[in-house]
Amino acid sequence: MHNDHTPEELQEAVREIIVERIPFNRMLGVELEECDTEHAVVRLDMRPEFVGNYVRGVMHGGVISSVLDVTGGLVALLGVIERTRSGKLAEKLARFERLGTIDLRVDFLRPGDGDYYLAKGYLLRTGSRVAVTRMELHNDAGVLIAVGTGAYVVS
Amino acid sequence: MHNDHTPEELQEAVREIIVERIPFNRMLGVELEECDTEHAVVRLDMRPEFVGNYVRGVMHGGVISSVLDVTGGLVALLGVIERTRSGKLAEKLARFERLGTIDLRVDFLRPGDGDYYLAKGYLLRTGSRVAVTRMELHNDAGVLIAVGTGAYVVS
Amino acid sequence: MHNDHTPEELQEAVREIIVERIPFNRMLGVELEECDTEHAVVRLDMRPEFVGNYVRGVMHGGVISSVLDVTGGLVALLGVIERTRSGKLAEKLARFERLGTIDLRVDFLRPGDGDYYLAKGYLLRTGSRVAVTRMELHNDAGVLIAVGTGAYVVS
Amino acid sequence: MHNDHTPEELQEAVREIIVERIPFNRMLGVELEECDTEHAVVRLDMRPEFVGNYVRGVMHGGVISSVLDVTGGLVALLGVIERTRSGKLAEKLARFERLGTIDLRVDFLRPGDGDYYLAKGYLLRTGSRVAVTRMELHNDAGVLIAVGTGAYVVS
Repeated sequence: MHNDHTPEELQEAVREIIVERIPFNRMLGVELEECDTEHAVVRLDMRPEFVGNYVRGVMHGGVISSVLDVTGGLVALLGVIERTRSGKLAEKLARFERLGTIDLRVDFLRPGDGDYYLAKGYLLRTGSRVAVTRMELHNDAGVLIAVGTGAYVVS
Repeated sequence: MHNDHTPEELQEAVREIIVERIPFNRMLGVELEECDTEHAVVRLDMRPEFVGNYVRGVMHGGVISSVLDVTGGLVALLGVIERTRSGKLAEKLARFERLGTIDLRVDFLRPGDGDYYLAKGYLLRTGSRVAVTRMELHNDAGVLIAVGTGAYVVS
Repeated sequence: MHNDHTPEELQEAVREIIVERIPFNRMLGVELEECDTEHAVVRLDMRPEFVGNYVRGVMHGGVISSVLDVTGGLVALLGVIERTRSGKLAEKLARFERLGTIDLRVDFLRPGDGDYYLAKGYLLRTGSRVAVTRMELHNDAGVLIAVGTGAYVVS
Repeated sequence: MHNDHTPEELQEAVREIIVERIPFNRMLGVELEECDTEHAVVRLDMRPEFVGNYVRGVMHGGVISSVLDVTGGLVALLGVIERTRSGKLAEKLARFERLGTIDLRVDFLRPGDGDYYLAKGYLLRTGSRVAVTRMELHNDAGVLIAVGTGAYVVS
């Protein structure tokens, strides 16, 4: 069985899930910058309501955790789709339904200030049941703000 | 030097910081249910825009991470305030400015469904520089949805 | 199909795996104090070669991590055995072969000093694929030295 | 005040602490392959007593956690020494006494088999109070076996 879709169709379908269909992602306004089978880059524009420590005016740890979880989950999804290789687009996307975060660790390295942020995620391993991903969040000046590690159940 | 405030005044001042002054907490709508020197309970009402996996209609991992980080940070703040013991209310609250999350781990145990959630946090240890907290999130049926551990710099 | 063994036979078989058959556990000298389907207590006696920070004479973080991983894995194994409920003892023990730690977090709360330590583990959740456990390490004076959280693949 | 020692003298002094003076590191037989102000590589030779899952003959998660903690702590120590810059060797090494692991996360990616392992650690950030490090463990075939993240108190 061969793929009945192009890589571009797959990427557009994944973008629609992540950016448009997940309500909390819409609330945050995440955008998909790029993705392939092993990595993804998600963009988040800063907003006044994302502030946590208002004395210092920096981004809330929950927003940072959210965008890293989104990015890790996206990479895990891309990894499991890649493993199935051939088949119908609809079947591959149905894997999203069974995807879940097992756990997430976030390390907050520097205060989150900037007009926008880029979260990069990449696969450390994927198997038939569990995927492990690493994520990095940089601000618009290229400063590393936070890193994360996520484990995801993919079957 | 003795305290120039009552425990109730301190609790109200902390509530104002957590619930009213932190922009992202306001966006989520967190409420402070109770707190003392060693623990705190934060409430979050479910909203349609908090959904992550829209196929299953469950809460986004980022919302769960956010409320656990809020709860852990609050407990760390309460712990450092307790350590200073005596003094002016304004000085104690100024500790908030220097509080920061070092890292956060969240374990997602069961799908987050319910009309509201209660996050309970408690101090595992606090020192002059670092506090460590554990957090638990239950839904309105008393089901344990997620647990977390946070390390916070408090000086 | 009913169990062809007693709970005592199962516990003895698990003890043999954990205490006698795992080479690194033998090197450390871990003992099984008690266990049932949802929790376990593992004992470790202090030895001079377990010291990490020799200036302060306290236990090495690697020893603490090891005994917490042992305890979490044991609880995950007990959980998966409980889920199978009925059947032959040999088949249940064969689940050990497929057990693996996905990830482990350890929080070092206080210096590890004491003549012996007790690590208590309990199940937070178990499913057909993943189990999550929490662990606590106390010294012989009842002081909480460290806590941990582990995710284990069980199928 | 200038350094009263060469970089080589510092590196040899650090090696002596890590490899020779820490009892549990001696028990494991860790070796220091290389180090500078921002990274370090630690070597561990496999031994029969390091086995965890004896059915599969792979390294115990506790051994992996131990060598990653050693490597992360070493990098944190190198970072804090670098920050002090000038001064006497003995004073710099005294920082070791105050170094402690706050927490450690280890992700076990693939079964640990090989004749020897190399753990590489690097600094993600260091401040006056807390350092955060990442670690990677490869086997002798260059396969990534595990990764870790550690937070260390350095003051």
